[in-house]
Amino acid sequence: MSKILVFGHRNPDSDAIGAAIGLARLEAALGADTEAVALGHPSRETAFALDHFGLDAPRVIERAAPSEVMLVDHNERQQSVADLDEVTILKVIDHHRVANFETTAPLYMRVEPVGCTCSILTRMYAENGVDIPPDTAGIMLSAIISDTLLLNSPTTTDADRIAAEELATIAGVDLADYGNRLLRAGTALGDDAASTIITRDAKSFTMGSSTVRVAQLTTVDSGEVLDRRDEFLTAMRAEQQSAGYDLYLLLITDVIACDSDLMVVGEPVDAVERALGVTVVDGHAFGKGIVSRKKQIVPQLTEILAGQE
Amino acid sequence: MSKILVFGHRNPDSDAIGAAIGLARLEAALGADTEAVALGHPSRETAFALDHFGLDAPRVIERAAPSEVMLVDHNERQQSVADLDEVTILKVIDHHRVANFETTAPLYMRVEPVGCTCSILTRMYAENGVDIPPDTAGIMLSAIISDTLLLNSPTTTDADRIAAEELATIAGVDLADYGNRLLRAGTALGDDAASTIITRDAKSFTMGSSTVRVAQLTTVDSGEVLDRRDEFLTAMRAEQQSAGYDLYLLLITDVIACDSDLMVVGEPVDAVERALGVTVVDGHAFGKGIVSRKKQIVPQLTEILAGQE
Repeated sequence: MSKILVFGHRNPDSDAIGAAIGLARLEAALGADTEAVALGHPSRETAFALDHFGLDAPRVIERAAPSEVMLVDHNERQQSVADLDEVTILKVIDHHRVANFETTAPLYMRVEPVGCTCSILTRMYAENGVDIPPDTAGIMLSAIISDTLLLNSPTTTDADRIAAEELATIAGVDLADYGNRLLRAGTALGDDAASTIITRDAKSFTMGSSTVRVAQLTTVDSGEVLDRRDEFLTAMRAEQQSAGYDLYLLLITDVIACDSDLMVVGEPVDAVERALGVTVVDGHAFGKGIVSRKKQIVPQLTEILAGQE
Repeated sequence: MSKILVFGHRNPDSDAIGAAIGLARLEAALGADTEAVALGHPSRETAFALDHFGLDAPRVIERAAPSEVMLVDHNERQQSVADLDEVTILKVIDHHRVANFETTAPLYMRVEPVGCTCSILTRMYAENGVDIPPDTAGIMLSAIISDTLLLNSPTTTDADRIAAEELATIAGVDLADYGNRLLRAGTALGDDAASTIITRDAKSFTMGSSTVRVAQLTTVDSGEVLDRRDEFLTAMRAEQQSAGYDLYLLLITDVIACDSDLMVVGEPVDAVERALGVTVVDGHAFGKGIVSRKKQIVPQLTEILAGQE
């Protein structure tokens, strides 16, 4: 029997990787034969966190069969492994909407409207009486810092605050100091081409009959991105057309100011304007207070696009 | 602001009603303004249980909007309230497969592969430090007895056994004695026409491109049903054709022997034979050891019907 594979979504962020490690180790402590894997390589931010706590990046897989699987930080089919329909899903631990997800048999599924999957996992360790190893606590803490912008995002709940404090203590780091270093590590654009940068943290969504791609970048200096605006819009348009997305949105989130610049290509742009209450001029809009794709973009845009049918 | 409505599936069984009461009262104890309602009237079995513990049957609703809702014991849209797409789903507590379910925003969803939703709820009371009132414990216990055939069904887990013992103590009943009385109360065919009996506990499923209706009756004397076999098959065929189901299955489950007789109308019959390992002759087959629609019928038949596409 092959190991049970535990993984997060494509284009893994710190929660996709941190929650995979966290759940795989919890399940192993409870007697299951699990391996944390990933559907892609770590981002700069996640690589910083793995390195800081002395962890290896999980093995990257393209297909999961014939293994059984546990999903973390996602449930939508198009964000998961290519052969998801061919494998048995044993568990799902997530904090997103539920959509495009189906099983033939009962499973264990725990979805909570909190800021980070690793906050749910922190409680699951406690419920099962399993101690969290310091390195695991470190990567799980990094996931919470990343998903909640150091507990500043509107998605942040008490469960995230409690888990972050607890994990920081176990991991032996100062929450604010480590958090700021982690977020800054994730913001550097580096030498990558715009076409690479816009796919680093991009997710696809089915909204009504539209396929929408929503990418997100974090920055401490949005000017650095906006100066390259034409380059980004060109890259987005190329990607939108080649992959057949109806809409391609890029969210450039300032992790200090907690606002986002939005870039939009494709149609219908007016749906984006109505959904988010913004005005798009030449493919750009300013989203005051918008920092969360999950809470401030996806539900609002789904409502408008599904309602148009 | 209207109350949050808490309800189980259409054609409610004891778990649909018991879990609605159980969750509504737990949430109320935690400060939410909830009302347990139902998508139909109680079965004879559930009426026996409600009466035994001095509870009123929940109010029957046809639509839920504009209230927010919490679902128990189901998640599939076609088993839920007609206007589910128009309301906000706050929570789902269930023990079935997840399918035909979608939200636009994150929610609280807890699905566990146990025998009964009320076993999950029993743990949730403990996790939240809320005492279960004796009458609530009684109806929740009835749900577990019903769903697990007094802890004999292959769906039964340790969680169900532990919850049943605990709830019986709180409710002040002897598990085996009360359980046998409850199951017998649910088996009487009474004077109802076959067309009524076959819809008492029937659920619809989408399997591949087929729509399949699976009804279940419990009995302590399957001869009583089999003697009326032609009457049942005629009623099933009428229902299958008028409602446009591809397949209509009736499971006549002997709660003492823990086997089922199966009646089948519609097509493809050979898919049923292959899925369940039975031979259908003149619309009838014997399913040795088959007692669970959820675990022994739906996954197997879905696999075959979805695989044929």
